Amino acid sequence: MVHTGSCGDRLHRILIGYLPILTWMPKYKKSDLLYDAVSGITVALTLMPQSIAYASLAGLDPLFGLYAACFGSVMYIIFGSVRQITIGPTSVVALLTFNYVNPALPATAVILCFVSGIVELVCGLFRLGFVVEFVSMPVTGGFVSAAALLMASSQLKGLFGISFHAKNCLEMWIKFVENIEHFRIADTAMGMTCIFVLIGLKSLKCVKVNAKGMKAKSYSVLLFLLNTGSNVLVVIVSSTIAYFSIRQGQSPLVLTGTIDSGIPQFRFLFLDYENEDEKFTFLEGLSRLWPGAIVVPLVSILSTVSVAKAFSGGRVIDASQEMIALGFCNIFCSFMGSMPVAGSMSRSALNHTTGVRTTFSSIFTSILVMLSLIFLTPLLHYIPKSSLSAVLICAVTSMFRYDMAILLWKTNRRDLIPFTITFVSCLIFDVEMGLLFGICVDLLCVLYRSARPSISIEKETNSDHVKWVVRPSSGLLFPAVDFMRQRIIAEMSSSERPNKPNLIIVDCVHFDKTDFTAAQGLKSLINELKSESCQLELMNAKECVAAILESTLNVKILSMVPLQDSIKKFNFIQPDLNGIESMTFHEMKMKDICEHKA
Amino acid sequence: MVHTGSCGDRLHRILIGYLPILTWMPKYKKSDLLYDAVSGITVALTLMPQSIAYASLAGLDPLFGLYAACFGSVMYIIFGSVRQITIGPTSVVALLTFNYVNPALPATAVILCFVSGIVELVCGLFRLGFVVEFVSMPVTGGFVSAAALLMASSQLKGLFGISFHAKNCLEMWIKFVENIEHFRIADTAMGMTCIFVLIGLKSLKCVKVNAKGMKAKSYSVLLFLLNTGSNVLVVIVSSTIAYFSIRQGQSPLVLTGTIDSGIPQFRFLFLDYENEDEKFTFLEGLSRLWPGAIVVPLVSILSTVSVAKAFSGGRVIDASQEMIALGFCNIFCSFMGSMPVAGSMSRSALNHTTGVRTTFSSIFTSILVMLSLIFLTPLLHYIPKSSLSAVLICAVTSMFRYDMAILLWKTNRRDLIPFTITFVSCLIFDVEMGLLFGICVDLLCVLYRSARPSISIEKETNSDHVKWVVRPSSGLLFPAVDFMRQRIIAEMSSSERPNKPNLIIVDCVHFDKTDFTAAQGLKSLINELKSESCQLELMNAKECVAAILESTLNVKILSMVPLQDSIKKFNFIQPDLNGIESMTFHEMKMKDICEHKA
Repeated sequence: MVHTGSCGDRLHRILIGYLPILTWMPKYKKSDLLYDAVSGITVALTLMPQSIAYASLAGLDPLFGLYAACFGSVMYIIFGSVRQITIGPTSVVALLTFNYVNPALPATAVILCFVSGIVELVCGLFRLGFVVEFVSMPVTGGFVSAAALLMASSQLKGLFGISFHAKNCLEMWIKFVENIEHFRIADTAMGMTCIFVLIGLKSLKCVKVNAKGMKAKSYSVLLFLLNTGSNVLVVIVSSTIAYFSIRQGQSPLVLTGTIDSGIPQFRFLFLDYENEDEKFTFLEGLSRLWPGAIVVPLVSILSTVSVAKAFSGGRVIDASQEMIALGFCNIFCSFMGSMPVAGSMSRSALNHTTGVRTTFSSIFTSILVMLSLIFLTPLLHYIPKSSLSAVLICAVTSMFRYDMAILLWKTNRRDLIPFTITFVSCLIFDVEMGLLFGICVDLLCVLYRSARPSISIEKETNSDHVKWVVRPSSGLLFPAVDFMRQRIIAEMSSSERPNKPNLIIVDCVHFDKTDFTAAQGLKSLINELKSESCQLELMNAKECVAAILESTLNVKILSMVPLQDSIKKFNFIQPDLNGIESMTFHEMKMKDICEHKA
Repeated sequence: MVHTGSCGDRLHRILIGYLPILTWMPKYKKSDLLYDAVSGITVALTLMPQSIAYASLAGLDPLFGLYAACFGSVMYIIFGSVRQITIGPTSVVALLTFNYVNPALPATAVILCFVSGIVELVCGLFRLGFVVEFVSMPVTGGFVSAAALLMASSQLKGLFGISFHAKNCLEMWIKFVENIEHFRIADTAMGMTCIFVLIGLKSLKCVKVNAKGMKAKSYSVLLFLLNTGSNVLVVIVSSTIAYFSIRQGQSPLVLTGTIDSGIPQFRFLFLDYENEDEKFTFLEGLSRLWPGAIVVPLVSILSTVSVAKAFSGGRVIDASQEMIALGFCNIFCSFMGSMPVAGSMSRSALNHTTGVRTTFSSIFTSILVMLSLIFLTPLLHYIPKSSLSAVLICAVTSMFRYDMAILLWKTNRRDLIPFTITFVSCLIFDVEMGLLFGICVDLLCVLYRSARPSISIEKETNSDHVKWVVRPSSGLLFPAVDFMRQRIIAEMSSSERPNKPNLIIVDCVHFDKTDFTAAQGLKSLINELKSESCQLELMNAKECVAAILESTLNVKILSMVPLQDSIKKFNFIQPDLNGIESMTFHEMKMKDICEHKA
């Protein structure tokens, strides 16, 4: 019976791991529902204009964004573990989608969404969550900053009512300057006004309410609503202006254009797509965007996990589980014909502010977006493009991490290198190439740094012998051993005869691991030292390190003094080198080591 | 005066660093000349048949190999620092040359040689020698083994007198089996005989001479000559057979074919090449082989530096200087119209055995090869291809490092992973793609291992508080911090209330370096622990680590107890988290830490 129980327990734990809904669902209360509803509706207000804007950023019909907004979070309710997170269209993913999806074949965005989901799901099931740890914050910061600059630049034409086509950042600015004379006065005025209004409304956050009691509370709520609903407000007001100017027979503004109304049908859209002027199979579509099928999920995972970490509130995030959740979200979305989705930092923050209790709040977001899809799409037609550009530019500026650059300058300037390299290469190449390049350079720096431990050499001269204790500050994986070897040899060749050591002790106290190449390096060091009639001993080697060294160096361990958990002290001789099996017993005790340190 | 002297000294040291010839030339003695001459001539005997065989391995005219043999080492006399090394055509470089040089445009091999030289020279001048350290021995072993298998496979057709064209290893074996019925009896017989004779002659090395005195010495010399000159012997005997069979009107053997005699002219062959049927400019040629211009120098450097290390005899090899020397060798060779060259392990070993004194011995090799170029080329015509294949197969089998695989199995099985991955991917893809892939996987393993330190947690329960000392076994660069964080949080959540710690001390004694991301990770760990009303302190941080942590975490260091050179102990509080600036003084002294360890 006990066995069955523990087996059931284990199954239950595994189930809860994969289905976090099982954790909160049984404890769900009425009061939770209220909080979730408020959060869900608030998020929907921000989400709707954003999703239209992001779809246009991706060069797609607004419906792709609205479907993403509507269905993005549905699967996260079941599989997601961080209650604040909302999944949906995000600016970075939209930018990448624009890079990979041919505007002439918008339906490939759905294929991209599906394939991203599959890749994320597979990575999650293979527990590849740890990969995220290898992307450092400076790299992420540089990438996000470059993406922000690129997105803001791409919206300039919308803001001024100009139209041109450019892919990279420099080209955008050149074409912008070339075409600035063709700017449309009405769009420019509308865009600029929207930006100023948005900045004004956003700054309401900082306003302190002086009144007291109920009045203070209602003021706070008003300020909060104005701040949160600023995008919706700007879009509604500008659309109203556009509507009335059209009714008066004028059309000075570039508008979003007609949007089909109604909810989408659940269909395997991606299997074989056919439309009036586009027709392709799934594989044809995939072949047109294939590098995107690696980059988009990578970036989605990165951003979602970093959002999850930001809101985990002390819990350890299971990155693999977040990958699985994101994968299901994208797969489900693709069935509904949406663009790729990911976790949004700004909307998750909003969720957090409004006190969301569970991931169930997304249901309210979905319902609201769906209602607007059914009833409001005719009105979406009138949204001026310049006001969408204004919304995007304002949303994106906060992503520009100049604050991180300053912090890095103050704390650790070396970390500015990956930041700058990622930032610059994202602007010069594509964002995704830049990201990959930045990650590689960053990891190479880590490798290089771990291959260059600081090495302290303590010299001790007695009447009869000269002893050096060499203590590398970190483990001895292969790239580091040559460095230590060179350091010792260089130190030896710079010291004159009477000070030349006849015993060198390598203190392995900081060694965590070792490998074959490192052991071989030590072996040749021993040979080299022998030719200078100097002996090399090791001490404080952990058992796992000792085992490898022992077998590679073909030595006998003469003494082991158990020190700590798994630390052993041993010394050895190299019997095959001078014929005589001389044996030494290294007398140093732990006390001596401590004295060395003090 | 002193200043000028030290300045002159420094100049002298720099000059000696770049021109090792200045070290040995002034001390050169007559007796050195004798040893160098013997070594040089012995090497030439091995080199000549090898160079013809390697040229044919590269799909080139034998002259490309002979020129490489003749001029390969000339520049190494001036710039090389390891006396045993001989530069010339090698099997691995020949195999790569075959991959990149179109057999229809053999002159591009000269361009490859020139460009490799330039790349090597530039890498050397930029002191990129350390890059070599990042290629581990298992990767090199896997690569060399795969190359050996590939080369042996490529020679099967020559051995059996079959002709077909195949690039990868599997294809070679498939085509070989398909075409085996077309084998030529004479070539097969000749090839097989050569292999058996070569094996027999090589095994003479193990023969022990029983006689004494002069007789023993002359026996030893004879055995040594038979062993060393085995390749020459086999080639001469087989050529003689071929010559006489042709004179009798028969031609049962496939022969090497006509070779132009005479020494090459020094010319800028690579600038604009024009021949009867080939004509291209330097850039056209380069564009046809460009990835080779990265891979060939990389592999040449790798093999040359590992040969140099093997024979350095205790001296630290300056890998950058070896790169410079190799660069000059290749550039000079390209002026003479040779294929790319590198340091050869087998010939360097021969040099070592014959007691070479300086790099000057290469002059004798060059002179001998040049003489044979002038007088013997008509005879080279008669060398049977099957005997060259036999020479190659025998030369290459010793490169197959099954012994390393066994050693790895015995010592550190984890290192079999990079070995196997490199070996298999070299066979599946190209050798160079396999090498790069192997290096990447290996470095990722190093990264992963350094990101997973072992973490010991010591728990201490007093009447009023529960204290944990967390001690990661290696430095805290960013990929590791999340791991530690997860470990601590997991440990906390698995312990019940009375055992939950209210003070966690992270012992930074093994921390060598840190970075911004790691500091941020610690910061969020502090926040997480605060929410569990637990405080986090650091101790034993080195100054450089402390500086970064201090500024990132925005903490005041309340106490620093100088311990060792650069180790400081400090603790801190997080004033912005609970409003009250509570201060604690961590009383632990070095003695306590030692007690902890013991």
